[in-house]
Amino acid sequence: MTNPTIALIEKRVSANRFDAGHVLSETEIAELARLAARAPSAYNLQNWRFIAVRTPEAKAQLRRLAHDQPKVAEAAVTFVICGLLPDHADIPTRLRPFTEEGFMPASMASGWEEGARAQYADKRAARDEAVRSATFGAATLIYAAEAMGLASGPIGGFDAEGVAHAFGLESHEIPVMLVAVGRAAPGNWPQKPRRPLHEVLQIS
Amino acid sequence: MTNPTIALIEKRVSANRFDAGHVLSETEIAELARLAARAPSAYNLQNWRFIAVRTPEAKAQLRRLAHDQPKVAEAAVTFVICGLLPDHADIPTRLRPFTEEGFMPASMASGWEEGARAQYADKRAARDEAVRSATFGAATLIYAAEAMGLASGPIGGFDAEGVAHAFGLESHEIPVMLVAVGRAAPGNWPQKPRRPLHEVLQIS
Repeated sequence: MTNPTIALIEKRVSANRFDAGHVLSETEIAELARLAARAPSAYNLQNWRFIAVRTPEAKAQLRRLAHDQPKVAEAAVTFVICGLLPDHADIPTRLRPFTEEGFMPASMASGWEEGARAQYADKRAARDEAVRSATFGAATLIYAAEAMGLASGPIGGFDAEGVAHAFGLESHEIPVMLVAVGRAAPGNWPQKPRRPLHEVLQIS
Repeated sequence: MTNPTIALIEKRVSANRFDAGHVLSETEIAELARLAARAPSAYNLQNWRFIAVRTPEAKAQLRRLAHDQPKVAEAAVTFVICGLLPDHADIPTRLRPFTEEGFMPASMASGWEEGARAQYADKRAARDEAVRSATFGAATLIYAAEAMGLASGPIGGFDAEGVAHAFGLESHEIPVMLVAVGRAAPGNWPQKPRRPLHEVLQIS
């Protein structure tokens, strides 16, 4: 029997059609975000923020900022997945419960802080890390949604500046993608074709 | 009973200690890459490449380029996850089986090509997309590994230029992260503490 997680990875599709009458409760939305935040992040920075857009007014505004794509408003909720430019000074706070419980020596947390300071001094490296962390969160959200019997559709085409302004993002918060989540409506495509494996895998 | 995928998301850790005597077969490595490539990507570009580094010599070289982190060499395989700067001209090829089977009209594939051309004309947008796609692939690889009973550890701290040179990457291929995969050895930490949900979730 196929492992259920492998089966889920094999059957997941990026949905385009959602049941516009379906609603997700605050409890269900919180559960999706709780699981998304279990994703890995460099230095355990957890440099992400999830804005769950679910009122008709807020979804209509977001839809206008995303080339008027209907799924943004038809899905029960569309998340704005933000990556945060990493701030090395956050690291001691992020690791404190771990050092206090004795898993990690405090000196190691200081070493990580210094490592992050050096690694993200370069602006492009800092932005790359924001995109990486947000995408790890988005991917985990997508698989959590599948596990909860929900469909999802990541969206990269939107007006990032407009979204940042409309949702009051701070200057260190980058809207990396949108992810629509809800109940699938009929008419979604099957999973799109994949490139032959030999084109994407090299064994060295 | 907890859904097995949710349980897996909740228990996954970024492993640091691997069984250095454990080997993965080419079949197992190919299965990991096949599943990673089921990740979503914008316009179905699949703009990723996975280099599975598994010989002692290649792992030693990669370890030197990654601040001498032992896990790079101790894990059965360490993947270099590359994101490719998106080329809109690839889109008709990526979608051809889908248009030929009648799921998508050819005119829509042309529309996607034009959309991608406009979206990625900006260099930063193109790089962001490479990082996003590679990270979606890496996340899916990590969950596939968990499902196969393997441990994984993503690594962001490495000499990207050195890796690009050592593994012969082309100029449009960006080494976005490394992911060590193998059998866990004793001594790994539990999952690191997470920020309170109210800090990372806003419901609008």
